[in-house]
Amino acid sequence: MQYKIVIIGSGNVATHLAKHLQAAGHQIVQVYSKQKKNAILLAQEVGALYTDKIHEIFTEADLYLLAVRDYAIDDFILSLRLPEKVVAHTSGSVSLSGLENISKICGVFYPFQTFTNAIPVDFKTIPIFIQAENATAKRILTEVAQSISKLCQEISESQRQTLHLSAVFANNFTNHIFHIAQTILKKEKMPFEILFPLIKETVSKLMLQTPFESQTGPARRADWKTIDEHLRQLEAFPDYKEIYLILSESIMNSYHLEK
Amino acid sequence: MQYKIVIIGSGNVATHLAKHLQAAGHQIVQVYSKQKKNAILLAQEVGALYTDKIHEIFTEADLYLLAVRDYAIDDFILSLRLPEKVVAHTSGSVSLSGLENISKICGVFYPFQTFTNAIPVDFKTIPIFIQAENATAKRILTEVAQSISKLCQEISESQRQTLHLSAVFANNFTNHIFHIAQTILKKEKMPFEILFPLIKETVSKLMLQTPFESQTGPARRADWKTIDEHLRQLEAFPDYKEIYLILSESIMNSYHLEK
Repeated sequence: MQYKIVIIGSGNVATHLAKHLQAAGHQIVQVYSKQKKNAILLAQEVGALYTDKIHEIFTEADLYLLAVRDYAIDDFILSLRLPEKVVAHTSGSVSLSGLENISKICGVFYPFQTFTNAIPVDFKTIPIFIQAENATAKRILTEVAQSISKLCQEISESQRQTLHLSAVFANNFTNHIFHIAQTILKKEKMPFEILFPLIKETVSKLMLQTPFESQTGPARRADWKTIDEHLRQLEAFPDYKEIYLILSESIMNSYHLEK
Repeated sequence: MQYKIVIIGSGNVATHLAKHLQAAGHQIVQVYSKQKKNAILLAQEVGALYTDKIHEIFTEADLYLLAVRDYAIDDFILSLRLPEKVVAHTSGSVSLSGLENISKICGVFYPFQTFTNAIPVDFKTIPIFIQAENATAKRILTEVAQSISKLCQEISESQRQTLHLSAVFANNFTNHIFHIAQTILKKEKMPFEILFPLIKETVSKLMLQTPFESQTGPARRADWKTIDEHLRQLEAFPDYKEIYLILSESIMNSYHLEK
């Protein structure tokens, strides 16, 4: 079935969701954003109306997707009332229960991916996790998720929060470590691309064996001569030196090696 | 040209190198390993003789590749003498100069990849970095590298050591962080595979924009509410809690956010 949807938010998640929901045949009737300019831009792209005022949000849509930053969800919990409407937020960490102030027919619609506005995504392969206690909310959110993704799955609140935490490690922290590697290479005027074959192999191996089995390197061997040499090379980057030491010790702990 | 090569070592690097060098037409005349069983196994695979005694290493080969652990290289510097022969080690971090005790025609032959014995690799796409001051060593090592890889490149000692350090971040540390993510998911009985679309996207983005541009997540937004919640979830993993905090602070530092 095709639904009338209001998108609340105009950031990366809101934008990718709005475009893919529209492409799947749903009607985006309105885009809300506190940043009027962003609301207009996204609304134009998906053929919707826009508003930057919470009290102007249409009350006649079928589904309201709150794709705003976690800390902004509270504003809507305080001031938005849509009884009888399906309302869901898209956050990995915010609890579901607060949404009951907006509508009893509430849930979570959590697309599990890192979104950047400029980079298109294949939504079909992005897992969407649905959490809802209300049966109607669960049915409609699942249906909408399945209209844009092949990987739709029900999840509990604690699973969702654990998943979000694991994603901070698997995406945010690995990405930051790639940034560190790039910064270190710059010192010697070497291009980041030099690491691509190594990075691709690191990830390919994850499909074949556990990261625990794949681990190599000085910390895995408790090779303190090399570790000390690396710490010396990192003198110019005190942040990175600390990260190097703590991650090396954590690797040694994992294999019960002497630190 | 095809060379007679002695492989010193029987670990992951020695094994992959020996097999690919033989496949490229070189003759592996001997495999040395302190672990006699390993020397025999690898020697059989590549049609070579074997020894577990340094004084039994043939003196009539063209090239000697020291593919042993960093700390073991010193043993050979002390006891192996092969004047007039080309000798190279395969280490990212050990300096070249010590090898001059073995032969003046020395260099470094550094295949830039993470090797696991059980997993085959496509050597053609593995960068091999050559460092040599001696012209003959440079020529022969480059020729041998080009016989197995399309990506052969000359490098200075400080570049090689920086490259090795950056690889510890890009491979060892990201791999350990994937292990942490897997451990966290296990707590909620969720499979590691759930992270694969996210991990693939994290790496795909590296080809399109810098990791600095790609960064998202609570630390990037200095979202302490979520960070504190995650630290609370990590109470059962003190190691991981410390890593979470230090990496989050380092991300905030990168963007000059308030910690």
